[in-house]
Order: sequence, then C-alpha cells, then structure tokens
Amino acid sequence: MARFFAAAGNIAGGVACILGEDAAHARVLRLRVGDQIVVCDGEGKDYYCHVTKLDKNEMQAEIFDTVISPAEPTVRVSVLAGLPKGERADYIIQKSTELGATDIAFFLCERCVARPETAIVGRKLTRWQRIAEEAAKQSGRGIIPKVRLIPNLAGALDVAVKTELPIFLYETGDRQPLKAAIENAGSFSSAAIITGPEGGFEAYEAELAVAAGLRCCSMGPRIYRCETAPVAALSVLMYATDNM
Amino acid sequence: MARFFAAAGNIAGGVACILGEDAAHARVLRLRVGDQIVVCDGEGKDYYCHVTKLDKNEMQAEIFDTVISPAEPTVRVSVLAGLPKGERADYIIQKSTELGATDIAFFLCERCVARPETAIVGRKLTRWQRIAEEAAKQSGRGIIPKVRLIPNLAGALDVAVKTELPIFLYETGDRQPLKAAIENAGSFSSAAIITGPEGGFEAYEAELAVAAGLRCCSMGPRIYRCETAPVAALSVLMYATDNM
Repeated sequence: MARFFAAAGNIAGGVACILGEDAAHARVLRLRVGDQIVVCDGEGKDYYCHVTKLDKNEMQAEIFDTVISPAEPTVRVSVLAGLPKGERADYIIQKSTELGATDIAFFLCERCVARPETAIVGRKLTRWQRIAEEAAKQSGRGIIPKVRLIPNLAGALDVAVKTELPIFLYETGDRQPLKAAIENAGSFSSAAIITGPEGGFEAYEAELAVAAGLRCCSMGPRIYRCETAPVAALSVLMYATDNM
Repeated sequence: MARFFAAAGNIAGGVACILGEDAAHARVLRLRVGDQIVVCDGEGKDYYCHVTKLDKNEMQAEIFDTVISPAEPTVRVSVLAGLPKGERADYIIQKSTELGATDIAFFLCERCVARPETAIVGRKLTRWQRIAEEAAKQSGRGIIPKVRLIPNLAGALDVAVKTELPIFLYETGDRQPLKAAIENAGSFSSAAIITGPEGGFEAYEAELAVAAGLRCCSMGPRIYRCETAPVAALSVLMYATDNM
C-alpha cells in the first residue's frame, strides 16, 4: 500500500491532507478516489485511509483505522558517523534509515577529509533529510530519522552518552568485542554507534570517548570501510534486540 | 601494512613475486626495498615479507613469516542475490567481501529487471571479480571471494542446499524469524543467504526454495532494498557465529 508522511497538523478530524510534491507523487502512482493508502504522522502512528479527493496540489484521505507503526524498533539507536566524502554519507543515511535508526548525525573530527563550507551546509542537510524521508517511505518506517551535522567529536560523544549503550567503534588498541558490549548491557532501550571517517580516529579521540563513558569496541579482524561499519553495527544491534 | 594477493604459483622458495598492475601499485604506495608487506595466496595464508626488488613490472619479496589469515571467518557463507540493476551488484560484492563472504553469486529469476546479454557477461564478471579483489585487499581478507553469475534460481538453490544453513529471505507469507533459524541451527560451519532482486520473489519461487530444503526467513517488519538485505543478513550471521 502506498505510504505517505504528513505533518501531524495535516491530520485532523478524521482526515489526512497530503500536499505539494507528495500529492503530485500520488498522481504518479495513479492513485484514485477510493484507493487505500497509509498516512504516517512521522511520529510513529500509521493512519489507514481511503482517498477522498485528489488534485494536482492536494490529496485528502479519510481515516478508517489508526495503529502504532509496526515497523518501528523497540530500541532507539543514534548513528553518529565521522563525516565521510561524497556519496558515502548518502549511503549511511539510506541504509541506517532502512535498518531502523532513530536519528543520524555526521560529525567533524581530526581525520575528516570532507569539510563542508558553512554556505553549503544548509543545502546538504536538506538533501540528507530528503534521503532519509525517501528511505523511510520505502522501508515502511513510522518516523523519519532526523539527520544532523555536529561540529565536533565532543558533540557526538554528548549525544551518545545520553543513551544506555554508547558504542565507539575503533580499529585498534584496547577494545572489547561488540558482542560482549551488547550482551553485557542486558536489556536496553537506547543505544548509539559512533564510527570514524575514512582515515579512522586518532588515539586521543578514542581516549576522549572512553573518558566520556563510551564502550570502545571492535567488530573483529576485518577492516570495514567507513560507510560499512555503522550499517553492520546497526544490523547486529537490531538483531540482538529482536528487532530484525 | 600494504597487502598484496599473489597466485600460489608465484610464492615459492621463500620468495613471493608480485607482477603487473600490482607491482605498479607498489610504486604508487612508494614502497622501497626493505619495507615490510603482506602477500596473501588468496587461499587463506598470509606471508609476511621484506621487499627485496622493485621495478615497474615486478616486485620480489623475501618471506620471513607465514600465518593463517587471521581475518577469515570460521563460517563459510555464500551470498546469492537475484541480479539487481546497475551499481547495486557492485555494492553487494564490495560489502559482502568486507563482511567475510566466501563466495558471491547473482542469479536470474522471474522479477529480475537486469538481463545482461551473453556478449557482455564476461566483461561484467571480470569487473565484479576486480571489485571483490579490491575489497579483499582493503579489508584484509585471506581469500578473494569468487563472483559468479548463475542462470536461474534452481542453480542458486543447488548451491545453497549444499550448506548447513541455507536461508531464503522472503518478504511475505509463512516465514520464521532469521534469528530463530540461526539459533535453531546450533553450531554450523557453512551457510547460504538467498535474497531477491528489486521486485522480490514470486510466490512459486519461495515454494521452490522451501521444497528444496531452504529455511524461509524474515528480517522483521521493515522492507529492505535488494542491496541492503544480503549485507544485513551477512552481518548478523557473522555476529551470531562470533566472527564479528
């Protein structure tokens, strides 16, 4: 069934309104009055509707059932990645959204090659958010993960330590296996995954993370690309918490 | 340490020879006589060497230690994916290699949009194999996964049922959770993951898979893109078998 997101303000009185580009998209999908659609408020609720009106700029749909979005995991996971170059960021956003991340952020750190100029940050964020929205629709998510840019590692550590299982993936030194960290955490309802940019982290950055209270973890003997590590770690977190 | 693959025939008498493009790559890396490198025979053995000779077409290196490649997982996993369009196949090869797949194959099935003409299959396979080789080097693998094209689903099922845990990922119908299938399998040393192309599988294809003895599995309520599903499933297989 076609899936649309609508701001909570556009869902009221038993009717959901889909505006702008999304209404145009409904026409691309050749939807017609009477067809069933799902409208999601982006906050975890799905509204099952019948289309009642459809023109170029607006689709209206009458709600006949409301459910908690069944695709939302029971664990809230923040994916925090050292900003990579080019399409790798897009890839992390798309795959993390499919795999159930609650929010996604890129941060700048010592070895980041990508250093976006202030002037283009706004455009980049808009583009990133659009990728998350598309992936959320396609994968049936009940929320659209928020995508952010954090100016430094300290900011990312701050976000991570507010969760019950803050993981710092590091490719060398004193680390515990990711599996041990997950199993030792017992039951948890929030987690964060921090991974590095292309060149990884400096030793002092790993020390900062440990000092801040993060679990410094390894994903085994193979070396993952910077866009692979968060996706693999998120997959196993969802698996380990029965969300896959 | 820089990592090179050499055919077993080029490793003899305590000396490893690196030829052609790879020798040129050694110059790009600015290697010099005396530097340490790792030469891998692509069959799971790593040779620690000192460079003894380096010119445009050949690098010779004296072996001072031989070890079983530490990055090879203890479980052999075949990744078998319905042939997707364009770059999605490249992505599956690269990520599956990083994550420890033993071999990777694409097969043609009912809903495949991509149908390569016979004339270009050879070129495609060469390109795919090159992607696996690059990813194997970068991630520190001890083998280069072999990449193949299988003409139909029946051929892929044949490969899968020869493993101890043949998994068929299907997005609808009667399925068990992937986690249940993995946990019920107890200890195993080989597995296969079959996933569909962009449009998924036809119901009759899932029936064929079950009839052939595959475990029809679900990865939860979210819908994954065809290039995401094998990567996520491989991640959790490696995690569940203590290879991550």
